[in-house]
Amino acid sequence: MPTSTSNRKTSDIVARTISSPPHLEHLSTLSKNVRAKCLYQFSEPVSPHIAARSSLEPISDASVLAAVHDELSTYATGEDGIAIVETAGGVLSPSPSGSSQADLYRPLRLPVFMVGDHQLGGIGTTISAWESLHLRGYDVRSVALFAEDRYDNHSYLKDYFAERDIHAFSIPPPPERMTNAVEDAQSMRQYYEQAGNLEDVTAFTELFLHAHDKRISDLKSMPAEADKAIWHPFMQHRERSKDTIVAMDSAYGDYFQTYSRQRESQASSASETALLKPAFDGSASWWTQGLGHGNPQLALTAAHAAGRYGHVMFAGAVHEPALRLAQTLIEKMGNPRLSKVFYSDNGSTGMEVAVKMALRAATVRNGWSPDDEILILGLKNSYHGDTIGTMDLSEPSIYNKKVEWYSGRGHWLDFPQVKMRKGQWVVEPPEEWEGAQATFGQGSTFDSLDDVFDFEMRSQDQSLYNRYCEVMLAGQEKAGKKIGALILEPILLGAGGMMFADPLFQRCLVEAVRNKSLNPRSSRDENEWAGMPVIFDEVFTGLYRLGRFSAASFLDVDPDIVVNAKLLTGGLLPLCTTTASQSIFEAFLSDDKSDALLHGHSYTAHAVGCAVANQSLDTMMKMDRDGTWTVFKESWSQPGHDSALPAVRVTGAWSMWSSAFVKAISHRSNVDYVFALGSVLAISLKDPAGASYASTAATGVRDKLFAGKPGEQWVIHSRVLGNVLYLMAAMTTSRETLEVVEEKVFAALE
Amino acid sequence: MPTSTSNRKTSDIVARTISSPPHLEHLSTLSKNVRAKCLYQFSEPVSPHIAARSSLEPISDASVLAAVHDELSTYATGEDGIAIVETAGGVLSPSPSGSSQADLYRPLRLPVFMVGDHQLGGIGTTISAWESLHLRGYDVRSVALFAEDRYDNHSYLKDYFAERDIHAFSIPPPPERMTNAVEDAQSMRQYYEQAGNLEDVTAFTELFLHAHDKRISDLKSMPAEADKAIWHPFMQHRERSKDTIVAMDSAYGDYFQTYSRQRESQASSASETALLKPAFDGSASWWTQGLGHGNPQLALTAAHAAGRYGHVMFAGAVHEPALRLAQTLIEKMGNPRLSKVFYSDNGSTGMEVAVKMALRAATVRNGWSPDDEILILGLKNSYHGDTIGTMDLSEPSIYNKKVEWYSGRGHWLDFPQVKMRKGQWVVEPPEEWEGAQATFGQGSTFDSLDDVFDFEMRSQDQSLYNRYCEVMLAGQEKAGKKIGALILEPILLGAGGMMFADPLFQRCLVEAVRNKSLNPRSSRDENEWAGMPVIFDEVFTGLYRLGRFSAASFLDVDPDIVVNAKLLTGGLLPLCTTTASQSIFEAFLSDDKSDALLHGHSYTAHAVGCAVANQSLDTMMKMDRDGTWTVFKESWSQPGHDSALPAVRVTGAWSMWSSAFVKAISHRSNVDYVFALGSVLAISLKDPAGASYASTAATGVRDKLFAGKPGEQWVIHSRVLGNVLYLMAAMTTSRETLEVVEEKVFAALE
Repeated sequence: MPTSTSNRKTSDIVARTISSPPHLEHLSTLSKNVRAKCLYQFSEPVSPHIAARSSLEPISDASVLAAVHDELSTYATGEDGIAIVETAGGVLSPSPSGSSQADLYRPLRLPVFMVGDHQLGGIGTTISAWESLHLRGYDVRSVALFAEDRYDNHSYLKDYFAERDIHAFSIPPPPERMTNAVEDAQSMRQYYEQAGNLEDVTAFTELFLHAHDKRISDLKSMPAEADKAIWHPFMQHRERSKDTIVAMDSAYGDYFQTYSRQRESQASSASETALLKPAFDGSASWWTQGLGHGNPQLALTAAHAAGRYGHVMFAGAVHEPALRLAQTLIEKMGNPRLSKVFYSDNGSTGMEVAVKMALRAATVRNGWSPDDEILILGLKNSYHGDTIGTMDLSEPSIYNKKVEWYSGRGHWLDFPQVKMRKGQWVVEPPEEWEGAQATFGQGSTFDSLDDVFDFEMRSQDQSLYNRYCEVMLAGQEKAGKKIGALILEPILLGAGGMMFADPLFQRCLVEAVRNKSLNPRSSRDENEWAGMPVIFDEVFTGLYRLGRFSAASFLDVDPDIVVNAKLLTGGLLPLCTTTASQSIFEAFLSDDKSDALLHGHSYTAHAVGCAVANQSLDTMMKMDRDGTWTVFKESWSQPGHDSALPAVRVTGAWSMWSSAFVKAISHRSNVDYVFALGSVLAISLKDPAGASYASTAATGVRDKLFAGKPGEQWVIHSRVLGNVLYLMAAMTTSRETLEVVEEKVFAALE
Repeated sequence: MPTSTSNRKTSDIVARTISSPPHLEHLSTLSKNVRAKCLYQFSEPVSPHIAARSSLEPISDASVLAAVHDELSTYATGEDGIAIVETAGGVLSPSPSGSSQADLYRPLRLPVFMVGDHQLGGIGTTISAWESLHLRGYDVRSVALFAEDRYDNHSYLKDYFAERDIHAFSIPPPPERMTNAVEDAQSMRQYYEQAGNLEDVTAFTELFLHAHDKRISDLKSMPAEADKAIWHPFMQHRERSKDTIVAMDSAYGDYFQTYSRQRESQASSASETALLKPAFDGSASWWTQGLGHGNPQLALTAAHAAGRYGHVMFAGAVHEPALRLAQTLIEKMGNPRLSKVFYSDNGSTGMEVAVKMALRAATVRNGWSPDDEILILGLKNSYHGDTIGTMDLSEPSIYNKKVEWYSGRGHWLDFPQVKMRKGQWVVEPPEEWEGAQATFGQGSTFDSLDDVFDFEMRSQDQSLYNRYCEVMLAGQEKAGKKIGALILEPILLGAGGMMFADPLFQRCLVEAVRNKSLNPRSSRDENEWAGMPVIFDEVFTGLYRLGRFSAASFLDVDPDIVVNAKLLTGGLLPLCTTTASQSIFEAFLSDDKSDALLHGHSYTAHAVGCAVANQSLDTMMKMDRDGTWTVFKESWSQPGHDSALPAVRVTGAWSMWSSAFVKAISHRSNVDYVFALGSVLAISLKDPAGASYASTAATGVRDKLFAGKPGEQWVIHSRVLGNVLYLMAAMTTSRETLEVVEEKVFAALE
């Protein structure tokens, strides 16, 4: 039976949740300085999930959580004292809905006072209970149990917890019950008085108050200390100060638990603002988040792999998590070319591997010499990573112009983009395509996003794109350029500015480089690469970020190499896979060791990452099968064109952001255009100064969302890319949550 | 009370460990088909750690483990049936030595049959017990508990475990005890008969046998499947086959649990060889391993961070694990220059960051233009990573010659090396230093490794090195070379061939590039970089790998940028830090966003990695303080030169490999030279074909160590670099274990 104390100072109070009243009366009557209150009560002392069934009023986890939260909020006056929330049953005893006590209260992450077990076997059950709390991110501050000399659990546990900086103490057991009620009360009163004067017990309140103060003062000082000791990524540090750095206490589900001086100073007074404020993780933690922060399944899976393997060296070896992940990726991508998975640690390294693979394969087949300058073919505004080799895959830009060793090695194309402008889906050709606008007429506006993906209906655009690609490739050929790979981010170009490429254009480009008439060398094996190896960088776009396992499937083409990361581990840990075709793999086979791909980081295929990835993919695939996202898809579905079909067809292209919301914000006067796909929403804001990475048009909206409004339960933390404000949900975010986010965003765009 | 079944088929047997005999007699008498045996017995039914105290014979964890292992080995005849090991007390009940039951038996990793709790509160305690086993890497296969209708724990738990693919079932509770002993026995006999015929109970044996068969068949098939689906790092795949890939069942402490077809085929018959064989992790899992595989503290720490945060986006944010890690690194490196920590995911990316930092700082100060060719200064045979930018930091070699975009951008120096040849420490100048050998006389042989590090005594060598560096730098200056950084792996050059650079030479080189007379621009702030930024790649050599927190401390110089990875997380997860000086940091400050270091991977400063790193560093620093490594240091200590000092002084340079062993193998006829430092041992083998990465001189020894000899309890898994066979221990490996490793290695060098 663990009990938790709140992080609020209050007058001496015990706020109690589900429990039996005699116990409570007892406490109030016999002990001084304690106010007790019962929030829920069941008639039977059984597990809450059973008691809740027979309860007169329905009790949900959410209602219990809300009641506790609201009750605690009333004590947040700053007077000394602590509130203790006594849960119903043990740490993992079921909650009313059948989850566990620990999971039910996790959003509050109250510090924990655990009551240990003094009986035979109690050492093990007490430590196991602590481990269950610990792996859910709780801070257990204190453990108490009755002193009992035969089993002497308290001696063992005091030492055990002291090593873990947890205060454990014992109190004498209560006196035997007396038959005379008056004498019994007298005896208990005496017991409480004596026990209450024990040093450990008097220290208890101090301990929690001190820990609470320290937690808050740490959060307050962390930004200044970070300013001293941390070099943040992607940031001009002259713009950084202790007032702008966001201190993260923790995170759960869709939310960070933040302390922000910035917000504090914006509020009319400090006391009006809760010290900790949940902030919706609007960048999905830099596009990684899939299954919610503090996910206990992922935590436990990580721990199991750590306990089973640690990290085991992968050179020439294999373990079950790495093998199963490789097999799953090859099978589920549904691309008959892919056959071999190479592991690395992040999207950059995975792309380095991909480009090494592709250039080698092209060099071997074409007989190029080491002195030849080999280029890649790509799109402008692509972004493939921060290492110098992957920077070279993009055209010169703000990202790389001050990196001394950067040298762009490619030919990059402008491309048509998909946008919603004022409620209308359009495909806009790039400005550089002079005259193309005219021939582009038919394909330029669409009734629905699905129609953009209806390639058969877009034959005119297709002809245009094919001609363009043919001329472009002939030009490169004529100029004697040696092109070793076509590299694309399918559908969405992420870090380069969050752009929605016309999928038909990307498809035509892939088909063009593979054109058999241009590539007489290509074999009869249709899975062998032709023309040049095609690399898809699905680091951001793959594994359900856009609603599908494979982003390539939107284009209906089979790349020769695919790179996955970010969502791969559900948003917990770095891991990356580069999956290649057999024909790419074979380019490295020889009797000479130096022909091998001599690449491999120390933690290649680390078991923890692979196990977490398996768990994440299993979960997302199950969500896909079970129709978890149907509620979102429905908003994007449309009446079938063929009246013989059901009135509503589930669409191929859908978003977690509602169709109505996307349409609504596209009409906002400061919005240039908008799009949504999968869990991604991008809003391009009008900027008088012009669109660029240095643009500040979007930062105002971002800051408004993070500052919030007085009285709001939570705010929104988001990121911008130039004049684009984007928002990204986890794949587990609910429609209800996103509705509130949508309201806030709509309001902030005023 | 959990019980575990072995992974051996045996005749129907119950092997029982610590337990009380009445219980045991009861079982043997009343149930058919059960043979029971008590391995240990205490007079009192209390926790084993208390019972062990009053036991007549001392009982250690190791003796219990050995007894169970030996007992189970006698059943490994292949007949059908299962052995059940009943532990004393619950999952985390203390072992005789005060550890836990789960930790005591972890090296065997027997599949688990858990007995759940049917009483009030039993749902929570049963699940917590499962979580404690799960995070220690156990596979729980089955959970049984008594059917009890009021609390109905069995219904809840059946569903709960079914979702986790664990077979849970209930049996009726036993009948009430009867006063008449004969009637009671009759009643119990009947109960056992009925219970034994229940479908779940009869399925039980099948379940375990089936799971055992599947585990073995999976291990057997994994290599072939890996051959199909995996692209291994650093390997010519023409040399790979299903027979050479090592299948890892799990790992614990210093050992992999391996299944190897190769070894199977070498044994005279399959049955003579245990299916699973522990193999000492002789490469410390590619130089990462610090605190043992399957370390429950690291597993729990990882889980806590996952439960508290998941991954929280780090741009402009801070959380406690990342801040604390940064502060610890800055403080413990003891380098007054260092002030800012940048996070990335592995040594390659951390070195990319370092080189971007250094080149920018040098460019800004020197006013170089974007068109200038900027080089780095380094040592030949350096290796800094697999990404293209870090490959460019090394001279052309087998590693990079077939990477299309590689272009070495540096000036690389030959350097003197420290070696033990036939029992004598020597410093050998490179062959290219013509004539230097003569002037090198005094400094070329040493009585001890410590003397190599006694720079004051080596003034003649120092003068020589200083002159060399001066001439070399003047030559570069004269040739108009723009050098943007000096990059060194302090002391040991790892992947480039495992070489021990003369620390005095490295020190002189650093001092030379900083020489004030050459660098009139350098400021009066002594912590500002001078001449060129100095980068130390301590990815391999730092954080106690060589016995000290900082490898730079061996040289007694303060680099401007230090990169750490590998041991940073104790060998669990990828994480890297690039720690820079304030003056490097300030080169990126401006009012222009594009002057910032625009680098940052998605999982930058992921909370799980940072938390595990804090735990790992805390543990290693504590081991250092507590004298855990004194036993190793003593073997390397020597009588003090000054007789007034204690006879033995603890040396500055020491190894976990014993001094006597290192000396002994240096005399082996096939050994060219050898050295040891910290947990690293390198043996350079004579190769008639000459030393090179493609050399096979060392692979024969490696294969011998892995094949082992008949009857050996465990073998050694190791890696080679060209003609160098190296061995690396975890920082927790015991002297006893290394003694056995040393014996095996000595024998294999015949």
